[in-house]
Amino acid sequence: MLHALIMAGGGGTRFWPRSRKARPKQFLALTGERTLLQATYERIEVQVPPERAWVVTSAAHQAVAGKQLPSLPANQIIGEPCGRDTAPCIGLGAALIARRDPEAVMLVLPSDHVIEPAQEFRRIAHAAALLADEHPHALITFGIVPTWPSEGYGYIRRGTELPSRQGIAVHRVAQFREKPKKEVAVEYLASGDYYWNAGIFVGRAAAFLDQLHQHEPEMFAGLQRIADTWGTPRQHAVLNDIFPTLHKISIDFAVLEKAPEVLVLRAPYKWDDVGSWLALERLHPQDAAGNTVLADHAGVETANCVVVGDQGKLIATVGVSNLVIVQDGDCILIAERSKESDVKKIVELLGKRGLEKHL
Amino acid sequence: MLHALIMAGGGGTRFWPRSRKARPKQFLALTGERTLLQATYERIEVQVPPERAWVVTSAAHQAVAGKQLPSLPANQIIGEPCGRDTAPCIGLGAALIARRDPEAVMLVLPSDHVIEPAQEFRRIAHAAALLADEHPHALITFGIVPTWPSEGYGYIRRGTELPSRQGIAVHRVAQFREKPKKEVAVEYLASGDYYWNAGIFVGRAAAFLDQLHQHEPEMFAGLQRIADTWGTPRQHAVLNDIFPTLHKISIDFAVLEKAPEVLVLRAPYKWDDVGSWLALERLHPQDAAGNTVLADHAGVETANCVVVGDQGKLIATVGVSNLVIVQDGDCILIAERSKESDVKKIVELLGKRGLEKHL
Repeated sequence: MLHALIMAGGGGTRFWPRSRKARPKQFLALTGERTLLQATYERIEVQVPPERAWVVTSAAHQAVAGKQLPSLPANQIIGEPCGRDTAPCIGLGAALIARRDPEAVMLVLPSDHVIEPAQEFRRIAHAAALLADEHPHALITFGIVPTWPSEGYGYIRRGTELPSRQGIAVHRVAQFREKPKKEVAVEYLASGDYYWNAGIFVGRAAAFLDQLHQHEPEMFAGLQRIADTWGTPRQHAVLNDIFPTLHKISIDFAVLEKAPEVLVLRAPYKWDDVGSWLALERLHPQDAAGNTVLADHAGVETANCVVVGDQGKLIATVGVSNLVIVQDGDCILIAERSKESDVKKIVELLGKRGLEKHL
Repeated sequence: MLHALIMAGGGGTRFWPRSRKARPKQFLALTGERTLLQATYERIEVQVPPERAWVVTSAAHQAVAGKQLPSLPANQIIGEPCGRDTAPCIGLGAALIARRDPEAVMLVLPSDHVIEPAQEFRRIAHAAALLADEHPHALITFGIVPTWPSEGYGYIRRGTELPSRQGIAVHRVAQFREKPKKEVAVEYLASGDYYWNAGIFVGRAAAFLDQLHQHEPEMFAGLQRIADTWGTPRQHAVLNDIFPTLHKISIDFAVLEKAPEVLVLRAPYKWDDVGSWLALERLHPQDAAGNTVLADHAGVETANCVVVGDQGKLIATVGVSNLVIVQDGDCILIAERSKESDVKKIVELLGKRGLEKHL
């Protein structure tokens, strides 16, 4: 049976001030009425009913995740005592799911991407699940056809082509490549042989565990000990004891780059990782002056701004352009659009000044 | 005896969003802990005790004026049913003060200017009061030595010099000049013969009334009728009946430009009319990057901005310069500094959109 493991552990400062420690990006409704986490699960709900859906998040966000996905059983919303990157996260999910169903296929999903239309996502998920049944040792990734030479994403080079499934192209993975420099990214794009790594992984839970057993035996042993006490009174004590000791490493490094059979499916959907406030320009329409407005806004001679604010608060602008303006509760951010990634410096500054209440 | 008449009737939109309809500039603490109105009265309190201090404001602001100056008798805070410019305002004050004391000298003060140091202001006020006693028909103005060729102020050309008083230069006024064009203002400055008109007037209440009687006889008659019922049960009815019918005209046009004996004293104090948010740069120190900060502010690569906000609200800026940023309650203004005078367009826009709640 198909299970889903939704990774909702991200922290991140790029959406400050709307995203605070208490509410990272995946828990925000940046693109519509539903939060990114809710949209992630709704997209696959018809294929994965709640009894087979799992969320891994930080212990601090277990409550908000449960509130946003009330249909999920409480013991399937797992709170990591600390972040150890994606290998321990996915490994723990795999261990718990395999105990429930040794034949389970697992769909591992980031919780903070925008994917449309949902039916195209379900088509590729279905194709991946079929492949995982046919190739019991395979690990499967999704590849996004790149539209510009991004330096911010990992790339996947396609190898041998396999027969397509559900009209979706299937290749063996020839190579994973880390975030490249600009000129390298330009070459990748020109070659036509590369996808962006969408951060989605599919395979039998047992296949993930086999690879961890082989390449990260200590992590595997630790995960088994946690899984063995799951559902017992010792569950929390053992999780808190062992999880922080696990090797902090990504699933890509730990397993994907070493596994003998890794496949990639060409994603048929539109994808956006909502990397920063400027992503809202791709996800919402602009007014005649190029402004993207998600706020009560009164503008005079205002152009190419992104304006986000709470309902009932008025943001007025006069003679400005190329600004990102975000009002949230007791904080306001005003950033030049090309400097928007420096929002993290504000977060650092607030930490240094002891103004954690705003974080 | 010396009476003070503080004019606090201004509305104005240049300080939106801090200044709203309910609280114009003179009622705000833009420069320190005291509001401009409070600072205006405190400056002369030792010369003019509360029983001789009067405030004229709009009826809508009578309560806030009284609250800010609790030592003043309630019936000396006069609420105009509508604004009729300065001649009816000063005329009404003169009529009420003359009934109390026919020999009274009246010091007429705008309530929204910054004047420092207070002791220098008291020195010129004392000199003016002495002159008014010696010259019972004279009207006296204060002149500010201009520091740049402003197109925004009225000018006064000095005539014959008279003996100084309290070390303060005294001249007859040769001519009042309206706000000049740039090239004319440059000539005025170069000639050395001009002052800025500081909007302060001193003279015996009877002298103001005599001039009104001569040049605005209908206004004079109306003011007498209001003064005759003052303190009776008919006070409000008569005020509301007559005041709106009075000629809407400034004291300069109505009287000063026609009066036979008008003197000007050279102001020895530093003066600022706090004309807009940028005035705060003159009234407060700047940080190393040229920012004027009256807010909880976290800035990265931020220069030459004016940042004003409520306590406890955080304003964060990244990679911006030359902005005026004002947060007040449920409103935020972000304006390019050279466009700051267009804030009035925001106010118009809000009115058109039915968003009066923000005005």
